[in-house]
Order: sequence, then structure tokens, then C-alpha cells
Amino acid sequence: MNLDIRYDFGRRKRIGLIEAIWGQDKTIEQLKKVAKNVLEKNEIVFITRINEDKAEKLLEIYPNANYYKEANCLIIGENPDKLVTKKKVAIVSGGSSDLNVSLEAKLALNIYGVYVETFIDVGVAGIHRLFSVIDEINKYDILIVCAGMEGALATVIGGLCSQPIIAVPVSVGYGVSKNGFAALNSMLSSCSPGITVMNIGNGFGAAMAALRIIKSA
Amino acid sequence: MNLDIRYDFGRRKRIGLIEAIWGQDKTIEQLKKVAKNVLEKNEIVFITRINEDKAEKLLEIYPNANYYKEANCLIIGENPDKLVTKKKVAIVSGGSSDLNVSLEAKLALNIYGVYVETFIDVGVAGIHRLFSVIDEINKYDILIVCAGMEGALATVIGGLCSQPIIAVPVSVGYGVSKNGFAALNSMLSSCSPGITVMNIGNGFGAAMAALRIIKSA
Amino acid sequence: MNLDIRYDFGRRKRIGLIEAIWGQDKTIEQLKKVAKNVLEKNEIVFITRINEDKAEKLLEIYPNANYYKEANCLIIGENPDKLVTKKKVAIVSGGSSDLNVSLEAKLALNIYGVYVETFIDVGVAGIHRLFSVIDEINKYDILIVCAGMEGALATVIGGLCSQPIIAVPVSVGYGVSKNGFAALNSMLSSCSPGITVMNIGNGFGAAMAALRIIKSA
Amino acid sequence: MNLDIRYDFGRRKRIGLIEAIWGQDKTIEQLKKVAKNVLEKNEIVFITRINEDKAEKLLEIYPNANYYKEANCLIIGENPDKLVTKKKVAIVSGGSSDLNVSLEAKLALNIYGVYVETFIDVGVAGIHRLFSVIDEINKYDILIVCAGMEGALATVIGGLCSQPIIAVPVSVGYGVSKNGFAALNSMLSSCSPGITVMNIGNGFGAAMAALRIIKSA
Amino acid sequence: MNLDIRYDFGRRKRIGLIEAIWGQDKTIEQLKKVAKNVLEKNEIVFITRINEDKAEKLLEIYPNANYYKEANCLIIGENPDKLVTKKKVAIVSGGSSDLNVSLEAKLALNIYGVYVETFIDVGVAGIHRLFSVIDEINKYDILIVCAGMEGALATVIGGLCSQPIIAVPVSVGYGVSKNGFAALNSMLSSCSPGITVMNIGNGFGAAMAALRIIKSA
Amino acid sequence: MNLDIRYDFGRRKRIGLIEAIWGQDKTIEQLKKVAKNVLEKNEIVFITRINEDKAEKLLEIYPNANYYKEANCLIIGENPDKLVTKKKVAIVSGGSSDLNVSLEAKLALNIYGVYVETFIDVGVAGIHRLFSVIDEINKYDILIVCAGMEGALATVIGGLCSQPIIAVPVSVGYGVSKNGFAALNSMLSSCSPGITVMNIGNGFGAAMAALRIIKSA
Amino acid sequence: MNLDIRYDFGRRKRIGLIEAIWGQDKTIEQLKKVAKNVLEKNEIVFITRINEDKAEKLLEIYPNANYYKEANCLIIGENPDKLVTKKKVAIVSGGSSDLNVSLEAKLALNIYGVYVETFIDVGVAGIHRLFSVIDEINKYDILIVCAGMEGALATVIGGLCSQPIIAVPVSVGYGVSKNGFAALNSMLSSCSPGITVMNIGNGFGAAMAALRIIKSA
Amino acid sequence: MNLDIRYDFGRRKRIGLIEAIWGQDKTIEQLKKVAKNVLEKNEIVFITRINEDKAEKLLEIYPNANYYKEANCLIIGENPDKLVTKKKVAIVSGGSSDLNVSLEAKLALNIYGVYVETFIDVGVAGIHRLFSVIDEINKYDILIVCAGMEGALATVIGGLCSQPIIAVPVSVGYGVSKNGFAALNSMLSSCSPGITVMNIGNGFGAAMAALRIIKSA
Repeated sequence: MNLDIRYDFGRRKRIGLIEAIWGQDKTIEQLKKVAKNVLEKNEIVFITRINEDKAEKLLEIYPNANYYKEANCLIIGENPDKLVTKKKVAIVSGGSSDLNVSLEAKLALNIYGVYVETFIDVGVAGIHRLFSVIDEINKYDILIVCAGMEGALATVIGGLCSQPIIAVPVSVGYGVSKNGFAALNSMLSSCSPGITVMNIGNGFGAAMAALRIIKSA
Repeated sequence: MNLDIRYDFGRRKRIGLIEAIWGQDKTIEQLKKVAKNVLEKNEIVFITRINEDKAEKLLEIYPNANYYKEANCLIIGENPDKLVTKKKVAIVSGGSSDLNVSLEAKLALNIYGVYVETFIDVGVAGIHRLFSVIDEINKYDILIVCAGMEGALATVIGGLCSQPIIAVPVSVGYGVSKNGFAALNSMLSSCSPGITVMNIGNGFGAAMAALRIIKSA
Repeated sequence: MNLDIRYDFGRRKRIGLIEAIWGQDKTIEQLKKVAKNVLEKNEIVFITRINEDKAEKLLEIYPNANYYKEANCLIIGENPDKLVTKKKVAIVSGGSSDLNVSLEAKLALNIYGVYVETFIDVGVAGIHRLFSVIDEINKYDILIVCAGMEGALATVIGGLCSQPIIAVPVSVGYGVSKNGFAALNSMLSSCSPGITVMNIGNGFGAAMAALRIIKSA
Repeated sequence: MNLDIRYDFGRRKRIGLIEAIWGQDKTIEQLKKVAKNVLEKNEIVFITRINEDKAEKLLEIYPNANYYKEANCLIIGENPDKLVTKKKVAIVSGGSSDLNVSLEAKLALNIYGVYVETFIDVGVAGIHRLFSVIDEINKYDILIVCAGMEGALATVIGGLCSQPIIAVPVSVGYGVSKNGFAALNSMLSSCSPGITVMNIGNGFGAAMAALRIIKSA
Repeated sequence: MNLDIRYDFGRRKRIGLIEAIWGQDKTIEQLKKVAKNVLEKNEIVFITRINEDKAEKLLEIYPNANYYKEANCLIIGENPDKLVTKKKVAIVSGGSSDLNVSLEAKLALNIYGVYVETFIDVGVAGIHRLFSVIDEINKYDILIVCAGMEGALATVIGGLCSQPIIAVPVSVGYGVSKNGFAALNSMLSSCSPGITVMNIGNGFGAAMAALRIIKSA
Repeated sequence: MNLDIRYDFGRRKRIGLIEAIWGQDKTIEQLKKVAKNVLEKNEIVFITRINEDKAEKLLEIYPNANYYKEANCLIIGENPDKLVTKKKVAIVSGGSSDLNVSLEAKLALNIYGVYVETFIDVGVAGIHRLFSVIDEINKYDILIVCAGMEGALATVIGGLCSQPIIAVPVSVGYGVSKNGFAALNSMLSSCSPGITVMNIGNGFGAAMAALRIIKSA
Repeated sequence: MNLDIRYDFGRRKRIGLIEAIWGQDKTIEQLKKVAKNVLEKNEIVFITRINEDKAEKLLEIYPNANYYKEANCLIIGENPDKLVTKKKVAIVSGGSSDLNVSLEAKLALNIYGVYVETFIDVGVAGIHRLFSVIDEINKYDILIVCAGMEGALATVIGGLCSQPIIAVPVSVGYGVSKNGFAALNSMLSSCSPGITVMNIGNGFGAAMAALRIIKSA
Repeated sequence: MNLDIRYDFGRRKRIGLIEAIWGQDKTIEQLKKVAKNVLEKNEIVFITRINEDKAEKLLEIYPNANYYKEANCLIIGENPDKLVTKKKVAIVSGGSSDLNVSLEAKLALNIYGVYVETFIDVGVAGIHRLFSVIDEINKYDILIVCAGMEGALATVIGGLCSQPIIAVPVSVGYGVSKNGFAALNSMLSSCSPGITVMNIGNGFGAAMAALRIIKSA
């Protein structure tokens, strides 16, 4: 069968961004093949949503690979041309359960050489936690806001900060907030002006959106 | 046909609350009939979701009736036994578009003799608006929070105030927040502990929930 | 990485309620860390939705902890200032499958020193079961009603009792009632006046709502 | 164009039931044509969901037709072979807003010669209203239960009565109960055994289901 | 804790039907307790949705129990008063994957002494399969139609047969038909008159609905 | 403002199909402009979902235009190169309420010179109506099946006919079948093999799909 | 009643953005009041989703106001401090039906002095239309992409352009694409990296997101 | 029990297509039985959605069977009368994660003797990947397009190619694209004319639709 996987090697040239490899629905055989292809082109391998089992099998082949368990990401190789930028990104998160999405975004920015700081567990139920770090947050150029449950954090930050805000709903919760749809709809409906939103759990996408802004500055 | 409407005349005796008459799906003939029956029993008539057309037709018959256009409510007669209570209720609202729901709740509490203050347009996109009135709000015993869009107001208030909180999602918005479901799910998912929620637009129900608390104190 | 979890230690001071720790989406490492932090502040640790595996690992470290398997809750330490109140709460439940939610609510009230009685399996399909205990239920000041399937129990109780009612839909059922949405919508739509509703399965939240009422009396 | 409408003239022969004509999505021209065809075959014309405008235009042509405004039904002609049965049907309804659906069912049974009694406004929020008529209801052989909002009436009746029960959710309500889906799901999820359910607002269908039972006895 | 399960022992007296025990969400301890209670009252134990593990544990205690693996049902004891009836029920099923639901219905009717015949795999994609048995089906008094996928079987049978029809959507399929909702909505929307519908997978309920009809004849 | 509408004039050259103009969301000014542009290029103007008001305004400008009221379509000019084909299309429809969708498909095929026959009102609730025309239907090369309600017609035809089948769900019905989603899901879930499906009400698209098949033969 | 509307006058100071006034759910009285208040503070009035009736009433009072009918926006007064920026924004739109959303975004950027160009009707069904303008589009710094139907335009542009992309789903379509949800989900699911998404129809929000980026550069 | 499975042996005669056996919801016992029956009639056994466990058990009995793990399909025996056709099918796929659906379609066409070529991983995020093979694709007579995520591939191909297009949404993705519904709705909403759509993941159905077209040519 004709199974040559057409990894998008031209993407960096076209839009300056690499393609992440979605690990969840790929077999280990598919992952090995695509990793080999990508590395042969001197590109960095960035796999998201990869579980420990598959990660270990790749680590056997590529001992220099790094597996970030809490982010469910695996990285092999080095990004050939990093950005040279003073722009810094803050990732603000509503609860420690949002950690994996926040870390996926952080890793994706780090491989481009972008400085990232994370502010975990600053949910609005205890809004003083947010106020205690808001001045610090305002030192960053772009804000990525990750939140599950009712996702109100994006609205509050959007009313307090003037930077570009990329909101990422997180699949944390139960009942009506299970799977992240309550947070997604909350973020899309935000009363605060100019909040942009990513798909549920799309930390990598948020990082790419931040990169587009950084590169356009 | 056997069309004797069985208005729940025993409700006051059983649970101390009257039955509101849902005006939206009733014809003017049905409204006239039920109003007549209720008044004959010396009960107060409280009609919700009644439009101007139907209201005017009832006002012709009952010139002493009061029609509250902004609340879409019409009241005929007097509540025979009001509460004697020092408990006060604050109705806090995210935007002026939530007005009709807030006013429906206010009217329903007023006919029981409960003192109510409204705090309109204190949405969290400009959180200073909330903070400028939070001390005032905290003087009230029960909080009814009405909000459309993403409904984040309930969460923020829930983290700042210790009173019983009755959240009412409002059908204001467009796209994913149209019809009030984003606000409903946001309020149900709130990170703040102990927020209770009513059906979308159910201002009367929120008032009844407040009355249950007042009467139980 | 900056992973200091910001547990909301000020919540008791602000609103008199502690923060529960949501166990389902946290790793055992995260749970250990947050438990340690909370106990160092002399706060009680209350973990909900914690499975047996994680509970056992915490019990090894904190042999005095109590794991309530049927409630999926684990408690470490003592609540420093309990309420002194004569208010009593009745938890009424439609079926024995609703047990875990009912028990989560009961535990959360007990640690505050509130007296709670449970009335299990009084569903409305056999309404005599409810009538046989309704006088007993009416001796309590606040009612928490847990029900799955079609959640009609809340409506029937709401028409018979005048107390504050906090309805908790339960994720019991199959087909259209699977995941608790039929019960949730039924409770929100209740014809009985003043029924307040929590998110599906949110027994802890129902307890917090009851505490807000007790403290406001 | 080939627009011969193929009315199902064989249906009476095959299953003993006539075809109702769905008036809502048909133009007056289509209604005239189908009415003419049906009457030429000596069949009765039974049009549901027909508004006043269309009804008046048909009444001009068929002055002997009967338009039942509250049921949104129009009947022309006589049913050629009615049933000879002692079976009686009770239609129990949760609120007077459910009237049009209840009446559609009543009319459809009446043209077959079946005796029908309606019990309007016996909703479970005031359960005494139901208990005051339950003995009367139990004299009927088949129960049709119409309810909007949370539809709990079907469950309570299902636990008290042993007859066949045909539940019809009604599109009455707002927020989560708007359009009748909360009632539909509640009825399908009923804890009471053996409740059968029709589509939202399908009073005619409920009558046909009752006829199938009567004819099978 | 007050955990006396209130099994509905009066149900047989009130409406002539027993209560089935929903096995899926009950622990083995709960099942043991309720089985013991029910048997002490000389009632039959009928457990639905019980998996093999739980069934085996009950079989150790009650070696005379019968476990019907394909129906996921377990029965202990004998039904004290069976019906004496000549009414027969046909269960018609669209595909062999619908088997467990069909068998649950069959078992529930058998314990009442009702004669049942099953017609498996007569889906409408090959409509000749239905026509080859339609005369046989028409010898039965009540039809239970189980179907997943698009559920068209109910409509076709409803147009050919005059008996009472109880349609049971089955959770078979994938994509839009996964979980049985396409079949449910299809059955509720049926063009054939008088089709009644149960919740997805509710074979026991369909049997109870059939019993109500048989007992009313 | 730069409002040059870029009508896809190259479509005929690329794929042999013209672009229909969606009339519903366009103002009369927009329609006039696009009509003028298209006619200047000697292309045929085919507007779908156009109401009588807008149609009349265009008819004033283009008296040779044809407005098909029952199809909600308006056509101006002539298709420059029709197909020369012996392939014939049958449009089979479940009810006369589906007429507008069927006619939209018919018109779109007619302007290409394709012979079309319509078979209206052959729904499966009276399956003899289908069988009385099935031999006639089988003389056609491609079948377009339009149905609302539960959409079972597509499945039954799919099991009887071997031609390509293009199913079009129609927005006819109420309750769960309102807006055509029950029919859509039913058609997508069909047990009959190889049924292809269009968006709800997309008669024009069905015609284009048929044209693709005719042109590929 | 306490109906002082708390317009967020501090927003410009906090985050440099003004508050738009949502016209759809406000009465003309509310609009007059808020307009008066805002103008008294020397702020610009920007009303979105305002229909012609309400606009005309405001134009009588403020003859210098500008009503943009195709954008459903009304502007009174001048923005006191515009941006001084060389950044330019391109608004790319899939069809001419998306016009009102595109124009709302354009107006909101224009009042800040930002140069905007619109590229209308470049949908991907005729991808040559996009390619004919892609080089022109690439001269802009930020891209706002408006599309209804299946919203594929955002993905294609996202794969070709490296700028920040703000996608706005538009409520154009029918059947599954009615109300814009298909476009919304398509944009959120985009395979192209770093596409950010706004609520359905939120042109103003897209402009505000673009302003955040421009101001952060 | 009457469990004779009525495999549709007449289907080949009626419509020239065999029945696939849906493996997912069948037990190994059911699969063995149906396989035996089918082979005795000299028909080919084609099982879809069969996991490795069940496949291995059938391979023990039928060592000549072929299990295609990546397609989750198992084939036993030979198709008695293959098609003699020059028509060729191209299967175009948006990502390598769509492989199993693509292969299911390919296998189903291969057993009929139809030549199939697959074009994997040509998603529109990197549209040059599509353009690099579009001329090759245009040599095929029928196109099957498989895509998950936002499913935009079908629209782009639909605007470039004139052949019949059968779009298959694939259950690949997360958040709003999880389970394939975003792709399904996107394909149904496509702006490109004449795209036909199958149920999510229905590769076999797409093959049958292609066969219907091939046989009709």
C-alpha cells in the first residue's frame, strides 16, 4: 500500500512554524516512521499527546530524546533556527489540574527560544491569588490563559490586562463542565474585549498563535 | 370540555409560597379565567412573561392592576400575609440587558415585603465596578446574581461573599452564549463553593428560593 | 518550572469555607504535595473523587486519615473551627445508586459539625416511600435532594416542603438519562417554586450551599 | 410536474387507522387538494397543526367542517366505521398550557367513538391536585399523560396506576425546558415501569397508540 | 449511616408490577443486601445490567439463581403470582447485535408467564426478511420492536401491523448512530401512527409496558 | 469599501458546474449586483432560497426570468452548454411537504438538460405506495431520495435498488424531528449499504452530486 | 429603582480599549441613556447589532451620528486618542453574506485609526479566487478571516500565511451549518497551527484582538 | 430461543452488494455462527471493526482468512462474481491517522476487483501537498475523501475536481473535533457543489457508494 506519510516539510519555509505530530491516534510504528523521516530532514520532532508506553519505545531508539511526562510531549533533536526575540510569554492557569496543557504550550515556545513564565493555580474563586501576581503578569508581552471548569479566569484577566490574550479551555471538570465545553463556551462568550480562543486542550496551538504574534511584531 | 383550571390554592398553606402564572403560553382568555378564579379566593395574581398586548387587556378589566413592562410582569391585588423580616436581598446583575430578569425577582420579593436592592451592570470585565460596590453588597443577607454571556460574575462574587448565592443565567448574547446556556453551564461549573443555580431567566424562582431561606432562618 | 500550587488558604477567612481538593484529575504526586502544604497551615484536607489507589498511597503517609470509599472522599486532620448551630440538614435520595453523592455531601457537612440525616431510596415511582418519611423530613431545616434518572423527586418534595431545597442531579441511568443531564434539566425545569440546583454529582457544593444558608441565619 | 399526492387510502384497511394530514408545512393549495381527494374516497379529513388563516379558507369551501382553534385541528366529514368499545381514555395534563396537545388527542379519539375525559392542571408541584382525582382517573382503561416543564407527572402517575400509560411531552417552558426536551427526556428516563413515550407534542400519535391498545383488547 | 434501602415492596400491590434492580451502578455489597431483603419478602429478584463478575458472586450465594449472560440479567426465585393470559408478545429485532435488549424484554415477560416469540435480524435493509415473517408476526397481540442504527424497522412494521407497538432503540452503531440516539429520534419521529417509544436499551421497560396492556385487556 | 463580489466564474471550466446563488442571506441589492455580473459573463443565474419579495424585484428587472415559487428558486438566462446524456434521475420523496427541496433538485438538473421524474409522497409508513412505483423507479439511473421525519425511506429504497442513491434530509417535522436532524442522522446511519447524504434541505447539492455521476459515466 | 448603568469608563485607561454597546437586547430608552452618559464623558459611542428602527431614533437626537446599515453599527462622536501605527489589517471573507461581520470589524478598527483592507468572497470552493489575492493579503500584518458554512477558509489561509490569524465564524448557512456552529467547530479544529477563534459573528471582538496585537508590538 | 440470524443472502441478487458483518458489537460466538452460515452459502465473509482478539479466534478456525489489522477488517473466502470495470477509485486522506477508515474502503473495493490508489496525508494545512498530487488524483474516476479534524480537504478537492466525491468524516481529533462531528458537519456544509457524505468512519459504506456508481455507468 502507498503509505508514504507526507510530513509537511515545507511548513517552516512557508509560515515559519513546524508541524507537531499528534501522538494519540498514531501507532508506535507510525510514530517511528515519521520520527525517522523528520530527523533525516534535520527537523525537530515534537510529539504531543503521547503516552508513556509509546514514549519509552521511542526513547529506546533515540536516547537523547526528552519525554515530558506531565506535558505528554516528547521532543527529539533541536530546532534549527530559533527566534531571537525579547518578547516574553506568561502562561496563567486556573488550577493545577490544567498543568499538562500549560506545559505543552510552554515546551512548544521553549523550543523556539521564547522565554515563558507559568503562573499556576490563580483561579478567580480566590481572586486575591490573581491580584497577588497581576503586576508580575503585566510584565509579559503575550498571555496564554488555561482554565477548565467555568473558565472565568480569561474574562477577569481580559478586563485587567491589555496584552494579546490566547485562551485555552481545559478538559477538567465533571457534569456540565466535563470535557471542557463549559470553559470553551465561557471563553468565547467573554464580556472582556478581544479574547481569542483555541480548541479545548490545544496548548501547542496556543504556542503557535503566540509565535505568530511574536514574529509579526 | 372539562377545562376547570386547578390553580394550586393550597400552595400558600403547604409551603407558604404562591403560584405564579406563566403568561407566555396562555391565551388572554385563559389569563382572564385564572385571574378571576384567583382573585375570588382573595389571592394575589402574579403573572410573569406577559407581553404588552395581553397586559393591556387585563388592565381594562382590572384598572388597579400594575403592569411592569421592563419586568414583563403584571400584578393584581395584594398579598394577604407578607413576611415580617429584617433579611434583605441584593440582586447583582452583569449588564443592563439582564434587567427584566432582575426586576422579575425584585417584584416577587417585594410583594412578600422583603427589602431588595439592585446592583446593575457590575460585570467582571471591568472588575473595579464590582469592587466599588462589594462592601455595600456584603450588607445584604442573600445574593441573587443575574448574568448572561459567560456568567463569570457568579464565580467572582462566590469567592468574595459568604452569603447564600442564587445564580440566574440570563438569555443574553449571541453565538455560543445565545439563549443563556453558556451562562448556565458556567454557573453550574463554578469553582466558587456553594453557588446554587436556577433555570435560565427564572427570576421568579430565584425570589422563591430566597424566600425559602428567609423563612427558614 | 514554577509549580507552586496556590491553595486558597484565605478562603476560610473570606467566606468561612474551606477549599476541597478535586482528586480525580490530580496525580498522586500533586495530591501529596497539596496535602502537605494544607496540613502545614493547620487546615483540614478534604479530597473528593479520589479512587482507592490514590487513597491507599495517602493513607500510608497519613495513617490517621479517613478514607470513605463509598463517598470517594478522603479526610486528613480536623476542621479548626466548626460551626455551633442547631440547624439540621436532611439528605433525601431517589435511589441507592445515588449513595456516593449523598455521602460526599454528608461528610462535608459533618466536618463543620452540622447534624445530617440521610433518607435513601425514597424515589417517586413509589411515592408512598416518600410519604412514609415526609413528616420526619420536615423536621429538618435544609433539604438536599439527590436524584438521577428523571429527577422528579425534587419537584415532588418542592411542592410538599417549605424549607430551602438544594437539588443535586446524579449521574445514574442509561440512554437519555446517562450522565445525569435528564435529571439536571428536570430539576432546573421544576414546576415547584424555588428549587435551587447544583452541577451533576456536586455533593460537596450542595453541602457548601447549605453551610452558606446556616451561617446566614 | 408529477404532483399527485399519494394519500395513504389503504391505511384503514391495513391497520384500521386513518392518516392525519400535517397542516403546518403544507400550503393552502396542498391542503385543498388533499382534502378534496380524501373526501372523494369517503374518508374523513383530519388536519393537525393548522392555523386560523388556513382553517378559514377551508371553512369557506367546506362550511360543515369543524375547526377546533384550541387544538389547532380541523375535521371535515365523518369517520365511516367507528369503534364499538367500552374502553375509556383519560387524558391527564400537567398545566393548562398543555391544552392544545391534550385536545388534539381527545379529538382524534372522539372521531373513533372512544369516550375520553380530560383532567387538566393536575401537576405534581401541588400533588394534592393529583390525589384529589386519582380515584376518578383509575376508572379509565388507558391513560394519556401530557406534561411540559420537567414532565414529572408521568412518573408519579406511573407509580400509582396500573393501566397502559402513553406520555406526551409538551413544548411548554423556557431555558432548559424550552421546546419540550426536558420533559421528553424525563419521561423516557422515568423510574416508573412501563411508561411509553411519544414525540414532543404528538397528541394525535398518542390517540393512535391508545386506539391500537383498544383494538387489541 | 442510615442506609436501609427502601425496595418498593408495595409496587406489586399498587400496580401489579415488580421492581427490577438496576445492577450496573450498584456494588456487589448493595446487590447482596437488596437481594436478601427482597427474597425475605418472598418476592422474585430480577437484576438487569449485571456483569459476569457480580453475577458469579451472587451465584455462589444463590446457586439456584439463573444468570442469562446474553441478556445481562440475573433472576433469583419465582414470581409468586403469574398472569393467566392468552395474549402473546412478539419481539422483533433489526439485527443480532440488538440481542441483549430483546432478551431482557423476553425474560421480564416470561417470569410473568407471558408467551414470547423473538424474530431476530429482520432489518429493513433487506425488507424481504421482514416480509417472510410478517404473517407470523401478525399472530401476536403486542409487538416489541428493538432496533439500533437508524431504527427504521419500527416505522415499516407500524405501517403493516395494527397491534400495539412498543419501540426500543438500541445502542448499536457508530458515528451519528452511536449510543442509540439516531434510533431513538427516528422512532419518536415515525410517520407510522401510534408507535410508542422507550428509553434506549430499556428492554425491561418495554416488557412492563406490554404487561400493562395485557392486564388492561 | 472594496465590495467586488468574486463570483466563481471559473467553476464551469474547472469542474463543469455552475455556482448557485444563495438567496436567503443576501439583500436585494446584493442579488441585483451578482445577477448583473453573472449575466454579463453569459452565465445562467440560478438563485435558491429566494422569497417572493426579492423574486418580484428581480422579475421587474428581468421579465424573462422564471420564478418557481414552490421551489423558492429563480432562474435568469440559459445554461450555455447543457449535457447530452441518456441518464435519467428519479427524485423520490416521502411526503408532499418535502416538495420544495425536491423541486430545487429537479430545476437544477433540468437546466443541464437532464431528464428527471418525481415520485412524491411514497413514504414507508404505507410501504405499498413505494412498492406500487418501485419498478418504475428502477428504470432510472440515479435516485435522489428526499425525506423528513425519520427519513426511513432512504433505507428501504437502498435495500431494494442498486443505483447510486443521494439522500436529502428535509426540515419537516416537530419535536425531535424538527429542523431535519432526525432524518439526517437516520440517513447517515442507514443499514442499507452505500447511501450517500447531503446537508438538510440541500436539493441543489443533490443535483450537483447527480451531475458529477452523470458526467463521470 | 436603582438603574444607574455602570458603563466601564475606566476600560480605556486600564487596557486601552473602549466598551462597545450591545444594541440588540437594549431598548431605545436604555440606548439613549447610555449614549448620553458616554458622550458626557467625552467617550465615543459604538453600538453594535442595532437595527434601523433604533438607529433612526438615535439619529434624530444625534444628527452627526453615523449609521452603517450593512454593519448594523452606529457610531457617535470621535475616538479621543487614536493609535499611531503602521500595522495594517486585512479582513478576508468567504462569501458576500459574511459582509456585516466583516464590516463591524472594519469599523471598530477604523475608529482607532488602523488601516484595514477587505477581501470579500474568496472562499475555498474556488481556491483560485484566494490564490489571486494571496500575495496582496500577505502585505498585511494581521489577518481577520470571516467565514460561514464549513469555515475552511481559515485553515487554508493558516497554511499559507505566517501572520497572526483571528478567525470569526459567521452565522450563514442552513441545516448543520445554520447559526455558524459548523464554522466555529471547523475553525477551532483547524489543522493549521495557531489559528485563534472568536465567538460566532463577533466582528467587534476580532477588531479588539487585533488592537491588542498592534498595541503590543 | 429463536436465534437464527437472518443474514441477508439475497442482497447480492437484489442490489449486487454483499452485507458486511459489523464486528464490534458481536460476540465471538455470534461471529463464528454467522461466518459459518455465510461460507456455507458460498458467500464471502467481510467483517469490519473486528479487534485482534476476535480476529485471532476466527483465524484458528479459518487459517486462510486474512486479517488486516490496520483496517480492523477480516476477510474469509472469495467474492464469487467480481466486477469487470476500468473505473478506478482514488482514496484521498487528510492525515495518516485516518488510515484505518481509508483501508476499510480500499479492502471493500478490492474484493470487487476495483482498482484503488490511496493518497495519504494530503491535508489542506499544507496545501502544496495536495497540489503535488492533484493531477494524479484527477486520473481516477471516483474520489473518496477521508478526513478528521475540520474536514476541509473535501471542500478544496470539491472545488478542483469534477468527479463524484464521497466524503468520509473520521473520528480523529480532540475537543470540538473529537468523535468526528466537526468533520461531518464541515463536509455536509461544504461550499463546493455536490459533495456527498457518509457516516463518521464508514469506509465500507463509501466503498459501496462507489460500487453503486461504477455499476451504474
